[in-house]
Amino acid sequence: MSVKTRTSADETRARILDVAEEHFRRIGYAKTAVADIAAALDMSPANVYRFFASKSAINDAICRRCLDECGALAQSVARGSGSAAERLERLAIELHRFNKARCTDEKRLHDMVEVAMAESWQAIQAHLAEIVAIFTTLIAEGMAAGEFRQGDAAEAGLTVKQALTSVLHPVLIAQSAGEDLEAETRRLVRFLIQALR
Amino acid sequence: MSVKTRTSADETRARILDVAEEHFRRIGYAKTAVADIAAALDMSPANVYRFFASKSAINDAICRRCLDECGALAQSVARGSGSAAERLERLAIELHRFNKARCTDEKRLHDMVEVAMAESWQAIQAHLAEIVAIFTTLIAEGMAAGEFRQGDAAEAGLTVKQALTSVLHPVLIAQSAGEDLEAETRRLVRFLIQALR
Repeated sequence: MSVKTRTSADETRARILDVAEEHFRRIGYAKTAVADIAAALDMSPANVYRFFASKSAINDAICRRCLDECGALAQSVARGSGSAAERLERLAIELHRFNKARCTDEKRLHDMVEVAMAESWQAIQAHLAEIVAIFTTLIAEGMAAGEFRQGDAAEAGLTVKQALTSVLHPVLIAQSAGEDLEAETRRLVRFLIQALR
Repeated sequence: MSVKTRTSADETRARILDVAEEHFRRIGYAKTAVADIAAALDMSPANVYRFFASKSAINDAICRRCLDECGALAQSVARGSGSAAERLERLAIELHRFNKARCTDEKRLHDMVEVAMAESWQAIQAHLAEIVAIFTTLIAEGMAAGEFRQGDAAEAGLTVKQALTSVLHPVLIAQSAGEDLEAETRRLVRFLIQALR
């Protein structure tokens, strides 16, 4: 395959995912057919099926793309400037904002998330492990710098991530539509940093 | 109404709730009719309706009874013996166990919880506020005893309760069927106690 053909195939894949995600969010996963996605792209359904074997395979790819984006954001925040505590606070806030931006309407997202939980289980677990590892590395850096007291960084990383569940879990974010979760995130992470010092 | 009549009415109410809860859990909320509950009690549906206006009113009463029981348990643990840290750890564990015992099968509970979230919203919010108040009082006692450092006990109480979401939220407990959430609870609460010291 030439570079050009490959690029074009990657672009088509990405366009299918963009249009499918927009449909799933606006109309709902259950009510969207592969034929609708194809029509919106001015393609035949058969052409969409050349790229994805099923609607749930499209959803899986959307889910993986979103997780990759989230992981890359978390890595870049954790590797940014500032003390470990500053980066930890920024990491919690940015993870919360990322999830919130993607989970504003629970009703529409419900099916999509259910399918992702079933079809992309391993990808989600791998992502969660990556986020824990990023917290762990950051805390280990804080321990090495004498900013946090010595201890089990891996256990602390897991604990901090779990203690932020109320502001990071997509389902809970969607249910807390009216609340100021960003203030809650800041309050939680500052409290957790006290435990690390 | 005589004492005897009132007692008997209370008993009937309680029996309706017991049977209804058992049906909702075993068969599902949607698939249970008031007529099924009445039949299991050897009553007429009209007699059940003398006590509860609708199936959702029965569910609301089940939900309130469960919340009351949980609140009473939390109060009794918080007022028990031991240091503030010991009671805080016990409180987290007992709240987790209480919720876990009631949320073992997500699929069957789903409708029941959905209806409760809609119909018993205020009761649930009042219960959550009570739990935060119990955490706050306990932390304030720890501060007064010099066991925890001085600070805003109300803010700490709210933060501790929110930081325990992954092990207290019924929906999350139901989703984490295979995991050792009791160990997670202990790890989380011990970490949070570090932040209070």
